[in-house]
Amino acid sequence: MCQLLGMNCNVPTDIVFSFTGFATRGGRTDNHNDGWGIAFFEGAGVRHFVDYQAATASPLAELIKQCPIKSKNVISHIRKATQGRVALENCHPFVREMWGRYWVFAHNGDLKEFRPELDGRFRPVGTTDSELAFCYLLQQLRKRFGDAMPALPALTVALRELCAEIASHGVFNIMLSDGSALFAHCSNHLHYLVRQYPFPVAELSDEDVIVDFSLVTTPKDRVAIIVTAPLTTNETWIAFEPGEMKVFIDGQPVEPAEYA
Amino acid sequence: MCQLLGMNCNVPTDIVFSFTGFATRGGRTDNHNDGWGIAFFEGAGVRHFVDYQAATASPLAELIKQCPIKSKNVISHIRKATQGRVALENCHPFVREMWGRYWVFAHNGDLKEFRPELDGRFRPVGTTDSELAFCYLLQQLRKRFGDAMPALPALTVALRELCAEIASHGVFNIMLSDGSALFAHCSNHLHYLVRQYPFPVAELSDEDVIVDFSLVTTPKDRVAIIVTAPLTTNETWIAFEPGEMKVFIDGQPVEPAEYA
Repeated sequence: MCQLLGMNCNVPTDIVFSFTGFATRGGRTDNHNDGWGIAFFEGAGVRHFVDYQAATASPLAELIKQCPIKSKNVISHIRKATQGRVALENCHPFVREMWGRYWVFAHNGDLKEFRPELDGRFRPVGTTDSELAFCYLLQQLRKRFGDAMPALPALTVALRELCAEIASHGVFNIMLSDGSALFAHCSNHLHYLVRQYPFPVAELSDEDVIVDFSLVTTPKDRVAIIVTAPLTTNETWIAFEPGEMKVFIDGQPVEPAEYA
Repeated sequence: MCQLLGMNCNVPTDIVFSFTGFATRGGRTDNHNDGWGIAFFEGAGVRHFVDYQAATASPLAELIKQCPIKSKNVISHIRKATQGRVALENCHPFVREMWGRYWVFAHNGDLKEFRPELDGRFRPVGTTDSELAFCYLLQQLRKRFGDAMPALPALTVALRELCAEIASHGVFNIMLSDGSALFAHCSNHLHYLVRQYPFPVAELSDEDVIVDFSLVTTPKDRVAIIVTAPLTTNETWIAFEPGEMKVFIDGQPVEPAEYA
């Protein structure tokens, strides 16, 4: 199984603290050695880094820790291969363009007998069930809404239905973002927290690192961190319910009614 | 105007030597300060790096020089903005998936009154004429060949026609690759050379760097370098003819008849 990390904020924020703990699981505190990846939205653009080396052995992961990239939406993944060999094209997150935006997707889980019919508009390049699910998901959104991106409430309803459908084939913990919102669906393992004023001193559980967020934030900053397993020992992480999908905007979970 | 650099090889090769000279033009020996990017195919996967900083000021460009990535097809670009503001989403190369493969594209030039009709399958995320041309090009290939990728001779003929059509709107020097071949179209400035046994000692024109390729190659290696302006002072670069499109496979230009 793999692990997921996501961040959604109201101002561009660096993910170095959380990524440092998370990347440690890619070979040291856990055995997710079969590649890793991270995607940062920056305006409409995306910085996308993937590697089939363990995150703990990757010069690129070191660079990301040393040169903070500020972003409002980040999705990261460390891989323990189940379907699809260890190769660059099988590393998450995956990126596709739809409706003139980039969509970034990562998956933790394993889908059985999942063979959806693809119409060719979005096709997997690699051989994972995850990329196949991503292509199917985009295709179905495109079929339902046509050429124009729908408003967020309609999109959220559609995504909930599609996630439930795909999750009937197995474990489907996912993160998806178009740079304006971060969608997270939980089959079994997903947690989140919102950091905001007054900011805590946080201690990583995987590395001997402490950060006093009050020193690096303003009182208006708000950051949601979503992750497979809690990253810190002294904060309260909220577990998703099985089957739950949450939408994060501006650093907090929102309900469609709130932004309708 | 921007500059382009491409590499096509018969064995995975690092591009550090050529990229070192090329990146110097992104802010030091030339004024292409408005971003840069590079994409490396690795199997079916792509490593894609873009930055809106000048290449000479980018930590990512430093990492690429220090950690050689071996690839059979590489496309790089340094940007001097003409259309589209300085932003991540406007940095080349651009990447899209078609026919279950990634396609990488970069453009040097400026298109006037180029407003093709897009059917929505491929849409620009940024605001450059270049990304628009890329989307149009993929759309037209998809229209002509449907769901199945054609053989290379048919694809080459179609690309020649499409490049000529787009080039009627202005300067359209481009590089395009799907990881198996590198297509290069020249409107006005494009040069190439093939390095093979016996390998030369090459001197960069933009940096005080010399490499004896015979020390880092085997007699079977063959590498084509394609670039806006020659990178070395002591090798013979061949200028493309205006309107010419060449296809590079396994480190050399080929004619469709050769691989039909």
